[in-house]
Amino acid sequence: MKTQREIMTSGEPYQQFDKELIERRKYIREQLLIWNNKSDNDERNNGIKHLLDEVGENFFVESNFKFDYGWNIHIGDHFYGNYDMTFLDTCPITIGEHCYFGPNVGLYTPIHPLDPMQRNADVEMGAPISIGNSCWFGGRVTVLPGVTLGNNVVVGAGSVVTKSFGDNVVIVGNPARVIKKIPLSSK
Amino acid sequence: MKTQREIMTSGEPYQQFDKELIERRKYIREQLLIWNNKSDNDERNNGIKHLLDEVGENFFVESNFKFDYGWNIHIGDHFYGNYDMTFLDTCPITIGEHCYFGPNVGLYTPIHPLDPMQRNADVEMGAPISIGNSCWFGGRVTVLPGVTLGNNVVVGAGSVVTKSFGDNVVIVGNPARVIKKIPLSSK
Amino acid sequence: MKTQREIMTSGEPYQQFDKELIERRKYIREQLLIWNNKSDNDERNNGIKHLLDEVGENFFVESNFKFDYGWNIHIGDHFYGNYDMTFLDTCPITIGEHCYFGPNVGLYTPIHPLDPMQRNADVEMGAPISIGNSCWFGGRVTVLPGVTLGNNVVVGAGSVVTKSFGDNVVIVGNPARVIKKIPLSSK
Repeated sequence: MKTQREIMTSGEPYQQFDKELIERRKYIREQLLIWNNKSDNDERNNGIKHLLDEVGENFFVESNFKFDYGWNIHIGDHFYGNYDMTFLDTCPITIGEHCYFGPNVGLYTPIHPLDPMQRNADVEMGAPISIGNSCWFGGRVTVLPGVTLGNNVVVGAGSVVTKSFGDNVVIVGNPARVIKKIPLSSK
Repeated sequence: MKTQREIMTSGEPYQQFDKELIERRKYIREQLLIWNNKSDNDERNNGIKHLLDEVGENFFVESNFKFDYGWNIHIGDHFYGNYDMTFLDTCPITIGEHCYFGPNVGLYTPIHPLDPMQRNADVEMGAPISIGNSCWFGGRVTVLPGVTLGNNVVVGAGSVVTKSFGDNVVIVGNPARVIKKIPLSSK
Repeated sequence: MKTQREIMTSGEPYQQFDKELIERRKYIREQLLIWNNKSDNDERNNGIKHLLDEVGENFFVESNFKFDYGWNIHIGDHFYGNYDMTFLDTCPITIGEHCYFGPNVGLYTPIHPLDPMQRNADVEMGAPISIGNSCWFGGRVTVLPGVTLGNNVVVGAGSVVTKSFGDNVVIVGNPARVIKKIPLSSK
């Protein structure tokens, strides 16, 4: 039988008041309060790193980085995240290598039903977010559940990414649209 | 004679350097610093609840929830607010039952004059915000002064709500526009 | 020979792992943690003021105000900044007199190359931001590198300012566009 954690991670409707999930959220709140209040980079980065499922080398985040579980966050080598990022990770958030995120980036995997009666009954589901290698997100970028971005994608500051995009593009706006293709480096 | 607090709440131009208003803002800053630093949900929710004018049952907010006065915030039963919400409540902010807000939601009631000479003389006024029952706001939703939303309204992540909307709609974008009507549940 | 600090401030590609820059960022993180946790206005405002290059009279910011260096922030008299502003100041950020900023305003001067190979080699540059006198920014305004705004500019909440504008206009949207000219006060 699947645990609620497994059901949640798969994107299916789950019980958010499951004991294991409640305890993990409580633990994460306690830990985030500790590590986000460390101005020492090594202390903060190492403390937060241990809360995430997978993190590569050269992981760096500014405070206050916030998330729900950490269980579903997978980040490649050479990640830099600026101030006040929020990753809601009921479903997997996968980030490739060499991604640089500006301040206030929000990656949101949870989904609620549009029907108010179902929503009020605390039905909650979700969809994963996947970001390729060598992506640069400007400040205040919002990414919606189910979005996949390819490699070398640049997202303009303040953009809301509502659908998936492939490799080598600059996307901007609300909703985000391609404004430029990025030529492959001749090096 | 009306107090500055009453004048402010009514939306008319008021003196923001009024002694009662200054002291309340100071008190709220002190209290928010205390309660937003509690990782224990009951401690944090109860501490914040006592600063708000009216709050129903099952009130839950993640830290750091911020507001100006709390005096003008009225929230129905079963409210959930995610990380880093900011409610500027110089005028009434009224939220119905069963509303769920994503992270970084901003409800702003203050208005300044467009004329720079008046604005620099510290004239400030405002307009109320009213949200119906069973509304779901995605992350990073911004609501402007004077907006009223009906029941069962879903606001997409990153939207800027500049005008009022009725019941049973999904609104998204900057400025927010209706993209879908929500059929009434057949249950 | 120019220091990396001078090269960074001029907008040219610089070495972000320069010792002087690393130590300053560390110092600023420590200081922001101290002063943003002061609910007393005078303590907080004075503490932060000393981290900025130039600040006029009547400087007021709510917590948590965040920036990178402070060296490149120049603010005129009578400034008010609401909760959670983020100023990324690798290049100069110049703000005139009598500017009022809502919560969550983000001024971002850093620029990374669009080419992923250059970006991954940690090449970073930037462009200054300049704001005139008597400007009012609504909440959650984002301003991109290289933008200059004139005097008496009002920016609507949630706007993303991607290019420069002159005096006496109201701009809104993503990207921000002029929606109104502001008549000069007849006083």
